[in-house]
Amino acid sequence: MIADLLIRNARPFGGPLEDLFIRDGRFVAADSVRAAVEIDAAGHVAMPGLVEAHTHLDKTLIGMDWFENRVGPTRNDRILADRDAKRELGINARRQSARQIMQTLAYGVLSIRSHVDVDTEIGIANIEGVLETREAMRDLVDVQIVAFPQSGMLPRAGTLELMDAALSAGADIVGGIDPASIERDPVRHLDAIFALADRHAKPIDIHLHEPGDLGAFCLDLIIERTRALSLQGRVMVSHAYCLGMLDASRQAGLIERLAAVRIAVMTVGSPSAPALPLRLMRASGLTVASGSDGIQGTWEPYGNGDMLERAKYLAQRNGMANDVDLEYAARVCTFGGADGIGLGGYGLSDGCFGDLVLVPARTLAEAVALTPHKRTVIRRGRVVVDGGELAGDLPVIE
Amino acid sequence: MIADLLIRNARPFGGPLEDLFIRDGRFVAADSVRAAVEIDAAGHVAMPGLVEAHTHLDKTLIGMDWFENRVGPTRNDRILADRDAKRELGINARRQSARQIMQTLAYGVLSIRSHVDVDTEIGIANIEGVLETREAMRDLVDVQIVAFPQSGMLPRAGTLELMDAALSAGADIVGGIDPASIERDPVRHLDAIFALADRHAKPIDIHLHEPGDLGAFCLDLIIERTRALSLQGRVMVSHAYCLGMLDASRQAGLIERLAAVRIAVMTVGSPSAPALPLRLMRASGLTVASGSDGIQGTWEPYGNGDMLERAKYLAQRNGMANDVDLEYAARVCTFGGADGIGLGGYGLSDGCFGDLVLVPARTLAEAVALTPHKRTVIRRGRVVVDGGELAGDLPVIE
Repeated sequence: MIADLLIRNARPFGGPLEDLFIRDGRFVAADSVRAAVEIDAAGHVAMPGLVEAHTHLDKTLIGMDWFENRVGPTRNDRILADRDAKRELGINARRQSARQIMQTLAYGVLSIRSHVDVDTEIGIANIEGVLETREAMRDLVDVQIVAFPQSGMLPRAGTLELMDAALSAGADIVGGIDPASIERDPVRHLDAIFALADRHAKPIDIHLHEPGDLGAFCLDLIIERTRALSLQGRVMVSHAYCLGMLDASRQAGLIERLAAVRIAVMTVGSPSAPALPLRLMRASGLTVASGSDGIQGTWEPYGNGDMLERAKYLAQRNGMANDVDLEYAARVCTFGGADGIGLGGYGLSDGCFGDLVLVPARTLAEAVALTPHKRTVIRRGRVVVDGGELAGDLPVIE
Repeated sequence: MIADLLIRNARPFGGPLEDLFIRDGRFVAADSVRAAVEIDAAGHVAMPGLVEAHTHLDKTLIGMDWFENRVGPTRNDRILADRDAKRELGINARRQSARQIMQTLAYGVLSIRSHVDVDTEIGIANIEGVLETREAMRDLVDVQIVAFPQSGMLPRAGTLELMDAALSAGADIVGGIDPASIERDPVRHLDAIFALADRHAKPIDIHLHEPGDLGAFCLDLIIERTRALSLQGRVMVSHAYCLGMLDASRQAGLIERLAAVRIAVMTVGSPSAPALPLRLMRASGLTVASGSDGIQGTWEPYGNGDMLERAKYLAQRNGMANDVDLEYAARVCTFGGADGIGLGGYGLSDGCFGDLVLVPARTLAEAVALTPHKRTVIRRGRVVVDGGELAGDLPVIE
C-alpha cells in the first residue's frame, strides 16, 4: 500500500503554482485530504509521464560491448546487419529491454510502445523476452508490444503466422512495414495486417518510410482500410516521411484525410530524414506522437531515450524557437503520445493515474530547451526517481 | 608553478592505451621523466581541448531570468529582438561571457572564437566586456574576439568606424555579415571588411546565410579577395548554407575553390537549416570547423555549448552512423576547429600545449554518440575539471 502523496508548489504543464494530491494511485482534489507524505516541488514544472511512442526495446545494446558500426548506408544494409547482430551478439531481449526501461525511467518515461522483432530466425523469442520484462516492471512502466516484421513479412514465408502467434502470446498491436519498398505488394501487405488486426481486435502500427508519391499512395490505402474496418483512432503510422516530401497543397489534403479517420502519426524528428510539417499537423488537429526509435543499437549508436530531449529535437528540426512552439513539442511527447497509443487515465487532472515528472525548470519551454536531468519521477503516487537517481528498491533484471 | 602531470592509460583520440606526460604546460615524451602528480585515465578517450569556433559570448542569457520568446521567424525579426533585448534586459557582456565560458569549460571547451556585437547603439562596450573576461580567464581558455556588425554595417553609418575602434581595442578578427541580403551591396561590404583586415593585419570571419546562387556568388567574391590580398588560411566563412543548396556538381566546384585558397567553413549542423555536404567537404580536404552559435539567447533558447554534443549533431544531420564518420565529426570539433581559427601548439603530440579532455567512453565513436558528461579537463597540465565538476579554485566573475 502506497501512502497518500502531496506535491506542493508544482507548475502543472508549466501553469501557475498548484499542489497536487495522489491517493490510491490517482490524482484527487488537493483540498479534500491530508497527506502522509509531502514533497516540495519548489516551483518546478510538473509534466505527466513522458510517452515513448516508438522504440525497439529488444534491440538496444545498452551495457553491452561497444558495437563498431561498419554498416552501409541503406535501410536494407541496416536490416541485414541488425539480423546478423541479433544472432552474433546474442542480444537478450528480456535483459536489454529491462536496461532501456530503467534508463528511460530516470528521465520520466512511464509509457512505452515498443516494436519487437518477429521473424523466421528468432520466431517470437523477442516478444516473449519483452513480455517477461513487462510483467516484472508493470508497477513502474506501461509497455505496449507491437509484433513487428522487421525482416519483411510477405517475402519471408511463415512470418505472418509468427505474428499471429505473437498476438496470441500477448503482443498488443499488429505491426506493418513499408508495403511497397520492402513488401513489394502494398495491397496484399496491408490487407494481411488489417485482417490480422480485425481477427485479434488489436490496433495497428505501420513503419512507413516510403517516399513522396509512393508514401502518399500507401497512406491513402491505409486510410481506406481504417475506414472500412472502423479502426478510427486505432491506427498509427510511424515516420511517414512522405508527409515531409510533398508540396504544400498535397501535404494539407493528406493530413486532413488522416485526421478525419483519426490515424495518429509518429515522428522522431530525425535530423537527416525529411522533416514533417509539424505546424500544419498541429493546425489540422492530427494526433502527433513521438519516440526515440532504436537507441544505442546496430542501426545507430545514438540515443538516450529521453522524451523531453526528443521534444527539443522535434522543435529544432522544425526551426521552432518560440515558447508556444516548444510547449507544443512538449505536448507531442506527453498528451500526443498518450492519445496516439491509446492510454487511458492519462494526465494531471483529478481522476487520472498519479504519474508525473518534476522537471527543474521555470517554464515548460525552458524544460524543453534545456532538458535538465535531475528530475523527480512519481508513478502511481510512489517516488521512483529522486533528483535523477533511481530509487533503491526497484527490481533488477539481469 | 604547476607540477608535472602524468596521465596513465588514456586512449589519445580513441587510439591504443598510452601514458601522456605534461611538463611546464606542454606534452613531452612520457618515458623521459617522473611525474609529481599522476592520474589514471582508466582507458578513457583523451581528446585535445574542444574547439568552439563560433559562438556569441556577449549575448547568452545563462543565469538570467527566463526570456519568453515571442520573436517572429525571420532573421530580421531576430536581429531586432536581439538589439532590443540587449537594451531592455541589460545583458552584461563581461558577466555573461564569463558564465558561458565556465559552463563550457566543464565540457572541455578550451578554445573559443566569439563574435561580439559592434553597433551604433552599444558601440564597442560588448567588445570591452568580453576583453575583460578574456583577460581574467586567460589561464583557463583561449578566447578570440570577432568584431561583428550584427545590426548591419553599410546601412548603419558609423559601424565601420566602430569596428576599426574594436580592432584597435583588442578584437582579433574582422567580422562580416550577409553582403547582399543585409548589406545590400556585396562588393562594397566585402571590399570594406577586407580593407579593414588588411590595414590591421587581422583574419576575417564572415556570417554567410545567403541562399543558393546568391551565396555562391558571394563565396566567389570572397575567394577572389582572399587570393588578391594573400589571406590564404586566414578567412573563415560561417554557416555557408548555400553549399547545402546547390546541385552536386556546383557544390563540388565551389568546395574545391574554397579549399584551394584555404578558406575554412564553419557549420553548426543546424537541424532546420540546409545541411552542408560534410562527406564531400571532408573528401576535398576543406578545413571544417564547428560551433554552438548563440546559446540560450533571444534567437533561440537552446544550447549548452558542449562541442562533443555538437559533433554528434553534425554527424546526425548528415545521416552518419558509422564509427569512421563519427570520428570525423570529432575531428571537426577539435583539429578542424583549431586549424580553422588558427590555433598554434594544438594537439596531443609532444610539444603541443598540455590541454586535454578525458571522456569516459571506450572509443571515440562512443564519445561522440553518447557525449558522457563526467569528463576530466586538463589545461596546461592543471586539472580544471574533475569528473564533470569545476575545480574549486577557479576565478569567479559576477
